[in-house]
Amino acid sequence: MPPATWPLAPDDLLRARQRLEGRVHHTPLLHSRLLDLRLGRRVFLKAESFQRGGSFKARGAFNALLAALEEGDTRPVIAVSSGNHGQAVALAASELGIPATVVMPEDSSPVKVAAVRAYGARVVTEGVTGINREQVAADMASRLGLRLVHPHNDPLVIAGQASLAAELSSQLEPLGVRPAAVLAPLGGGGLLAGLCLGAAEHLPGVQVVGVEPESADDGAQSLARGELVTLARPPVTAADGVRTLHLGSLCWEVIRERAASVLTVTEAELAEACWWLFTRLKLVVEPTGALAVASLLRDPGRIAAGGDLVCVLSGGNCLPSQISQLVAEHPPND
Amino acid sequence: MPPATWPLAPDDLLRARQRLEGRVHHTPLLHSRLLDLRLGRRVFLKAESFQRGGSFKARGAFNALLAALEEGDTRPVIAVSSGNHGQAVALAASELGIPATVVMPEDSSPVKVAAVRAYGARVVTEGVTGINREQVAADMASRLGLRLVHPHNDPLVIAGQASLAAELSSQLEPLGVRPAAVLAPLGGGGLLAGLCLGAAEHLPGVQVVGVEPESADDGAQSLARGELVTLARPPVTAADGVRTLHLGSLCWEVIRERAASVLTVTEAELAEACWWLFTRLKLVVEPTGALAVASLLRDPGRIAAGGDLVCVLSGGNCLPSQISQLVAEHPPND
Repeated sequence: MPPATWPLAPDDLLRARQRLEGRVHHTPLLHSRLLDLRLGRRVFLKAESFQRGGSFKARGAFNALLAALEEGDTRPVIAVSSGNHGQAVALAASELGIPATVVMPEDSSPVKVAAVRAYGARVVTEGVTGINREQVAADMASRLGLRLVHPHNDPLVIAGQASLAAELSSQLEPLGVRPAAVLAPLGGGGLLAGLCLGAAEHLPGVQVVGVEPESADDGAQSLARGELVTLARPPVTAADGVRTLHLGSLCWEVIRERAASVLTVTEAELAEACWWLFTRLKLVVEPTGALAVASLLRDPGRIAAGGDLVCVLSGGNCLPSQISQLVAEHPPND
Repeated sequence: MPPATWPLAPDDLLRARQRLEGRVHHTPLLHSRLLDLRLGRRVFLKAESFQRGGSFKARGAFNALLAALEEGDTRPVIAVSSGNHGQAVALAASELGIPATVVMPEDSSPVKVAAVRAYGARVVTEGVTGINREQVAADMASRLGLRLVHPHNDPLVIAGQASLAAELSSQLEPLGVRPAAVLAPLGGGGLLAGLCLGAAEHLPGVQVVGVEPESADDGAQSLARGELVTLARPPVTAADGVRTLHLGSLCWEVIRERAASVLTVTEAELAEACWWLFTRLKLVVEPTGALAVASLLRDPGRIAAGGDLVCVLSGGNCLPSQISQLVAEHPPND
């Protein structure tokens, strides 16, 4: 029985999967002999970089918007995001005919602003900073009657991300593979909490492991101390999708209970993973999306349990220059 | 009946397919709603970027080496290549236990030299230039008793590349797709000649179209004049896989007879295609591999025949910096 504080029941997960069917892609589960050779163990890659909108965030966004429509809530939506969540909400809203506003800091990359606009959303940047953006969005939401879609601390968003576990299970089963662990990036915790909940149902006995950059190790610290830790300063990392100061409170409730562990990686390990995925596997994976692979490249034994592993490549929204700069700053060994 | 000058009979193609089974990947045939929307017609992508060794060249290299072994020819092999053919020969030779030498110009990219060495081949660069490299290899071959594997003007290599057409046909059939045309990069002509021969058998009625950079339009000129044209100077293009001065003579015999047309693209179109494949489809495709898509992005109507199209993404061996530099030189419109 899940604790009473948990945000979701199994039925919520089932409904999310039903809602998402036909709305988001079943992304490929990739396998590379080259990677297995390099790591000395079999690793599968769940390529959410090929997801609609370029990241797993489409799962949570579509589920949140579809669930609201089912309830008769047709309010326009607003999201705070300088990245993948903004694109996902813009995409889902556009497809469902819901007006969407995305609040992004004034110094956001023009490419990311353009991507959100390309999905038809209104972008608000004037006077928005990394500090005040949540407040700007909350003010706009209450002033204009908009529904705020949180990037991770929302049961519907978590339930959407949980669909990844069921999908993964259905792809592993015909291969006869029961992995020892599934590794995924950990930022606000929506993906990891979703995986924990989904795995409990669809991948019983499989460890769920979060991966953070060293400078954004609030999840690892929280797990070690048994309480939600907030970072004193914004993390400095190329993994721009996990620059959160702390886990969402709902996510934390699940993760503290169910996640097996949280690993951290250096920026050099991250650069090497991006480089390796690019040059060897020909996959465009954004730095955040390469965290799980980064945790294994230099020491595949960090997951002590023997057996196969799954790394979630969480997204692919980056520019060629981001990868080349990251690699130039941390030249890979091979 | 093929003309008597043709290098290959249907039986040669069948044997090549049989030899390659289990040796090279069946690469994915990808489809993107986003690309269809952009082009206003349905386009499939045959992703040879995911082929072993990172390009279609593995097909020809494995076929040439396996056929020689069948004939009892166990000589070490030598290849001239600064790129994909060298990697493919090195990979095939290593797997088949044949010593391999690859002759590369002294100014070759250290990454490409390292890639060939990583497959276990001996690399010769001392005193080698872009001009004398063929001669260096021929001298070494006769002096040391090595078997020279030509990158395109070899019937066995062409027969290996032809396997792409049969594979494509087997992937299109369950989808009920009979494309109007298959577009592929044109350099020395091994891939295009192979496609022409394979399509005649497996994709009857489907046009085979070559795509060249504007500065490397010897194929287009040859087809227009009805005779093999040699460029006066080395092409200046980011598509480093097609910087040949003329088609191979064997390839030309097939292409003059069977290719529907040859299109040319600007460097800006090429940059836009690489950018688009990277940022939208999250695929690492080297500039040469993006030629076919480049020919359609700005004017999908260049293939006048109505219906679906297939673009061959011929390879993915490039560095993040190559893509970011190309894009910086030719900033894409969107």
